[in-house]
Amino acid sequence: MSTIASPAALETDVPLELLHLELVSRLAEKRGQEREKGLADLELLGYNAGYRIIERLTREHPKFKDELDLMKFICKDFWTSVFKKQIDNLRTNHQGVYVLQDKNFKFLSKVSAGRQYLDESGLFVVFSCGLVRGSLANLNLNSIVTAEIVSPPAVKFQVQVERN
Amino acid sequence: MSTIASPAALETDVPLELLHLELVSRLAEKRGQEREKGLADLELLGYNAGYRIIERLTREHPKFKDELDLMKFICKDFWTSVFKKQIDNLRTNHQGVYVLQDKNFKFLSKVSAGRQYLDESGLFVVFSCGLVRGSLANLNLNSIVTAEIVSPPAVKFQVQVERN
Repeated sequence: MSTIASPAALETDVPLELLHLELVSRLAEKRGQEREKGLADLELLGYNAGYRIIERLTREHPKFKDELDLMKFICKDFWTSVFKKQIDNLRTNHQGVYVLQDKNFKFLSKVSAGRQYLDESGLFVVFSCGLVRGSLANLNLNSIVTAEIVSPPAVKFQVQVERN
Repeated sequence: MSTIASPAALETDVPLELLHLELVSRLAEKRGQEREKGLADLELLGYNAGYRIIERLTREHPKFKDELDLMKFICKDFWTSVFKKQIDNLRTNHQGVYVLQDKNFKFLSKVSAGRQYLDESGLFVVFSCGLVRGSLANLNLNSIVTAEIVSPPAVKFQVQVERN
């Protein structure tokens, strides 16, 4: 065996998207109850990942002033950590409903060519709905998170915080 | 609804590891045939991801001079694209066997605290074995890829290129 030296390498950032795309492709082949179970699974995968990601991000973060402060953190730090960009627009009714718009949602930006998938666009957002729900759960907010693909790759996530 | 402005955000890079960790955790709960099927699934997930990742990376890359040149590309560009670091050591017998050593394998660096997982260390490498096998397949090399966790987080991947 001989050892081979390695000079510097070029960096790119696609593995997360491609891994996500693989998970979505598998699910796209399923139908009926299997599809439903797969969607719930993928949402839960996102939930658990979101729960852990925010835990790391907030470890040394001062306490949030209020719910809005926390949502801003999701839009900036959390979103950047996952998608390398921020949420473009955050709106709220100040009564527990938040709309987070990502005008160039990474998990859609590279699939827009493959139109066959877009009919099944729910598949592409369910993991990320889970991500948001999991991150909020870690910060003691129960929520319902849904998403609407207005015109790909733009997506609006709606967060409804559950009040006790 | 009112719009909220967002200042600059801090960047981190954990989502891929955490997503991988979630997939591994799920599999860790399975036993017997279900475990076997899950391992094969996770390897295939890696294979497909590796196949697509290398496709993007090599799109504008000149033809590889030889097999060794190609393996160096896997160790540098491919590995950096996925793990943000290069393979630390590449060895070969010049007869189709390559040993790629990563002294700080990212998928193990954060789990070394949780000893319960390390008994099941195969779970942590199977996806990445698939990644390597898939990337080589895209470059027309059939291979068998195995991995050995020497002392975590150090891992040795062994690639046996199949000759026709």
